[in-house]
Amino acid sequence: MKALEEKILKEGTVLPGNILKVASFLNHKLDVDFIMEMGKEIARIFADEKITKILTVETSGIAIAMGAAAAMHVPVVFAKKHKSGNLSGQMYKTVVHSYTHGVDYTIVVSCEFLDENDKILIVDDFLANGKALNGLIDIVGQAGATVVGCSCAIEKGFQGGGDALREQGIRVESLAIVEQMSDDSLTFRSM
Amino acid sequence: MKALEEKILKEGTVLPGNILKVASFLNHKLDVDFIMEMGKEIARIFADEKITKILTVETSGIAIAMGAAAAMHVPVVFAKKHKSGNLSGQMYKTVVHSYTHGVDYTIVVSCEFLDENDKILIVDDFLANGKALNGLIDIVGQAGATVVGCSCAIEKGFQGGGDALREQGIRVESLAIVEQMSDDSLTFRSM
Repeated sequence: MKALEEKILKEGTVLPGNILKVASFLNHKLDVDFIMEMGKEIARIFADEKITKILTVETSGIAIAMGAAAAMHVPVVFAKKHKSGNLSGQMYKTVVHSYTHGVDYTIVVSCEFLDENDKILIVDDFLANGKALNGLIDIVGQAGATVVGCSCAIEKGFQGGGDALREQGIRVESLAIVEQMSDDSLTFRSM
Repeated sequence: MKALEEKILKEGTVLPGNILKVASFLNHKLDVDFIMEMGKEIARIFADEKITKILTVETSGIAIAMGAAAAMHVPVVFAKKHKSGNLSGQMYKTVVHSYTHGVDYTIVVSCEFLDENDKILIVDDFLANGKALNGLIDIVGQAGATVVGCSCAIEKGFQGGGDALREQGIRVESLAIVEQMSDDSLTFRSM
């Protein structure tokens, strides 16, 4: 998505540890009009699939998942990172490693919100080594539901998570794929 | 908002500790079409104000804030609960007590995303004792910006936070106000 690549070049900054900071429109301040456009693009890409729900993980996946869900008129289920006082009953659980924060955490989804009839599109803001997506795919599998595909706003192609999923036969459609980045340069994969 | 009251009666459940669980449409699974309608209602209520940004707090405020922002065509800034590896630079900070989880936590907003020219609408999913809104109001004050008002999806009127803010002269518009709730009954304030 050309507009996203331009926005990353204009507003993104590269921090130590291969972190691409896009807090000005996707992670902290949300450029909602732009996120709704990204959502429409995801809906266009997956228009031929009969998706029943979008699955994401809190926190920063929620905005882009909302954008896609608004365009597709399906609900979002977001996996929670902590067992909340508000969560009760049976849950699907898996452990995910956070690249950004360097820790393992458990994500959970209430069993009542995913079942074997669901055709799930997994949406997230970033795709780096694919740990979060693998965790969400695991949860979809626990529910007996089907993963139709994954769509992330920004894939860090050089970290390999997206291509590893593609090699497993999973449809992964990222709106922009960063092939290389450093303090003073950033290039995208041709799509 | 009548449709919200009906949805709470149909899908909400009351848990011990005065917790109203609406995980099926607002907190865990998101009924995005319905949340977009709630957002339009918030935009209608505040149509005469020149709002520049919506401020909320992660996690569960993000969805309703996105809905309102999409209808108003303004950005969302969400306060973060933890100092993230992705946050750098100067930040506004304040301490908030979570009623649901029974703990204090620090919320932060990067100084680059709020300034003295901003007219802020604060949006959240729940308003109970008002601790989260007071924290967000504090952050708006630190930025020298103006609080135009607060809008929450569900106010628990019997916990008094909304009325205390109204007594301070702050415009608080909740889409549904629960006046009383127990295992087997739930009544709303007339609006």
